Amino acid sequence: MIHPSASVSPQAILGANVSIGAFTIVHENVHIGDNTVIDSFCEIGYPSPLAEGLPLVIGADSRIRSHSILYAGSTFGARFITGHRVTVREKTTAGLNFQLGTLSDIQGDCSIGDYVRFHSNVHIGKMSKVGNFVWIFPYVVLTNDPHPPSDVLLGCEIGDYAAVATMSVVLPGVKVGSGALVAAHSMVGRDVAPDTVAGGSPSKYICDTSKIKLKDGTDRPAYPWTSHFRRGYPADVVAGWDIPPSPRSESL
Amino acid sequence: MIHPSASVSPQAILGANVSIGAFTIVHENVHIGDNTVIDSFCEIGYPSPLAEGLPLVIGADSRIRSHSILYAGSTFGARFITGHRVTVREKTTAGLNFQLGTLSDIQGDCSIGDYVRFHSNVHIGKMSKVGNFVWIFPYVVLTNDPHPPSDVLLGCEIGDYAAVATMSVVLPGVKVGSGALVAAHSMVGRDVAPDTVAGGSPSKYICDTSKIKLKDGTDRPAYPWTSHFRRGYPADVVAGWDIPPSPRSESL
Amino acid sequence: MIHPSASVSPQAILGANVSIGAFTIVHENVHIGDNTVIDSFCEIGYPSPLAEGLPLVIGADSRIRSHSILYAGSTFGARFITGHRVTVREKTTAGLNFQLGTLSDIQGDCSIGDYVRFHSNVHIGKMSKVGNFVWIFPYVVLTNDPHPPSDVLLGCEIGDYAAVATMSVVLPGVKVGSGALVAAHSMVGRDVAPDTVAGGSPSKYICDTSKIKLKDGTDRPAYPWTSHFRRGYPADVVAGWDIPPSPRSESL
Repeated sequence: MIHPSASVSPQAILGANVSIGAFTIVHENVHIGDNTVIDSFCEIGYPSPLAEGLPLVIGADSRIRSHSILYAGSTFGARFITGHRVTVREKTTAGLNFQLGTLSDIQGDCSIGDYVRFHSNVHIGKMSKVGNFVWIFPYVVLTNDPHPPSDVLLGCEIGDYAAVATMSVVLPGVKVGSGALVAAHSMVGRDVAPDTVAGGSPSKYICDTSKIKLKDGTDRPAYPWTSHFRRGYPADVVAGWDIPPSPRSESL
Repeated sequence: MIHPSASVSPQAILGANVSIGAFTIVHENVHIGDNTVIDSFCEIGYPSPLAEGLPLVIGADSRIRSHSILYAGSTFGARFITGHRVTVREKTTAGLNFQLGTLSDIQGDCSIGDYVRFHSNVHIGKMSKVGNFVWIFPYVVLTNDPHPPSDVLLGCEIGDYAAVATMSVVLPGVKVGSGALVAAHSMVGRDVAPDTVAGGSPSKYICDTSKIKLKDGTDRPAYPWTSHFRRGYPADVVAGWDIPPSPRSESL
Repeated sequence: MIHPSASVSPQAILGANVSIGAFTIVHENVHIGDNTVIDSFCEIGYPSPLAEGLPLVIGADSRIRSHSILYAGSTFGARFITGHRVTVREKTTAGLNFQLGTLSDIQGDCSIGDYVRFHSNVHIGKMSKVGNFVWIFPYVVLTNDPHPPSDVLLGCEIGDYAAVATMSVVLPGVKVGSGALVAAHSMVGRDVAPDTVAGGSPSKYICDTSKIKLKDGTDRPAYPWTSHFRRGYPADVVAGWDIPPSPRSESL
């Protein structure tokens, strides 16, 4: 299952039934879980002094699509799924079934919960904290420097079940509450309360998420999205979603 | 013309005089037209169940630049030209002489007309419909989900000869009329009438396109752009452009 | 130091102690300075008629990270450092110690000064002029076409020590003055005076940079940033930074 043109370090630790694609490079400080498939043209365990000797750990049953680069020093839970050309730098930890879209760029030193979905081309600054079941859409940037350039890094926090729509910027240190929605093309300069919609540049409170109706011909509420959207989540996870999840994380 | 380090499936169908670059992978369900040149590090005909067995078809006289990924199930007309690192997913159809810039990402299930130009780093959501002679500039996103995440997909429509300037988002289901111009850094939340300029976040009507003068020392109108801009179009196509094209497509 | 899977033209001129990574392609019209390290999957000296026969010149002690593409016809000073997947087209010149982040895309015909830092995923249009010690942050676009599409190209100018924060667009022909700061998610449609902060869409004067305090517990001013930030600059360069640099470049 290792393509003859791939270059796999003899020190790399590969689980059972791992597949490595053509021309892919696997460096030495790497642990890859069982049944993981890594496509072509990837660089896995890119060495960096900022990894401080920590390995790259990829959980079982993962799929890394072509042209991706994962640095040493990060850890991903089982069923990690990427698009193409993702880059993840050192010391990021992600939970179960993280899905990371094509061209996304995680700068390192980030923590990401379980069942998080980042769509294509997101940019996650260092020190970002992302909860569980979060959605982040294309061209969103989570920033960290309040007066660039400086050595002051204030990471953003995105609460459980929150969604940040396309082309929005979250300013340094801002917290987006659990279940909140950030509208497209917004600059979020203040905290967003849980279960509210914020939007604009600079962002303002628009309404509670409960006011948004699903545009599917029914008049059902669109949020919490767990009431109608389940694609890609395991059956045991969505089993509890017949009613809105409660209580939410109160970390934000 | 096939580099010895390339990997070309014996089932792939290659026309006359096709060139395949170093380290490029051509999968089995692929038809490549005559005289097409594919650069290095590409993955052509990336397999996916969402292609439902359809082939990737690349028209004659095309040029695919390095590090690009084209999925099975899409069809491109003759003289398809890409920048580097483009990604096109399943079931996209594009007409003649589509030019797709570096880093652009087409999510699949899109229809694109003839002589369309996408500049670098555009993101085209599923279900988008793009007319003929359209221009889309860097970091533009065509969205589709009115309340993310959901299973409701409302694709955008971009009319013939329209131009969408850099860093603009077109919201789900919005129609940009033929000959219209969307200004840079706009969030387009309502339809844009043909031959008008819209801009801002949220976008508003600014003026008719006929009011914009060309900044070349003359006082000529800048729109329709076919009155002064012809670079890259074939002679037989621009032959009719001495006067503004009329009648326009009235699809929008 | 040349990986056996790399393809290096015998006409390419390599200095002493140059390292070329796996699967990297070095074309013929290339000069690489001493001690430079080029990673895997790169394409160096990509041929183009727009280079008009000029070579790609990479200064000594440079580091080009994986999957990068540098066209023929551009020149980079010593200690050029890139992230992954950068693209630089023809006839760009950059001074000493240019740092160019992952996914960045320079369209060619640009001039870039000494000690400039572009973060990830910036898009620099043709004809842009960037001074010395400039910072440009992710998803910033420097534009050039006042009425797209057209053949009129009005490049932007970014003055010495200026910083342009994330997701901002600088419109064609606009000058950002020395020491100025453009806030995140701005559309800069008019010139920005030196040592001022501009922001919004469209951008307006917000305050002088001297009003911004450093959020590090002190009450020091955050600008000029050279008063507190020195990471990554050589000792001889920062030796003069104990007091704010004076006089600034008066080119803008």
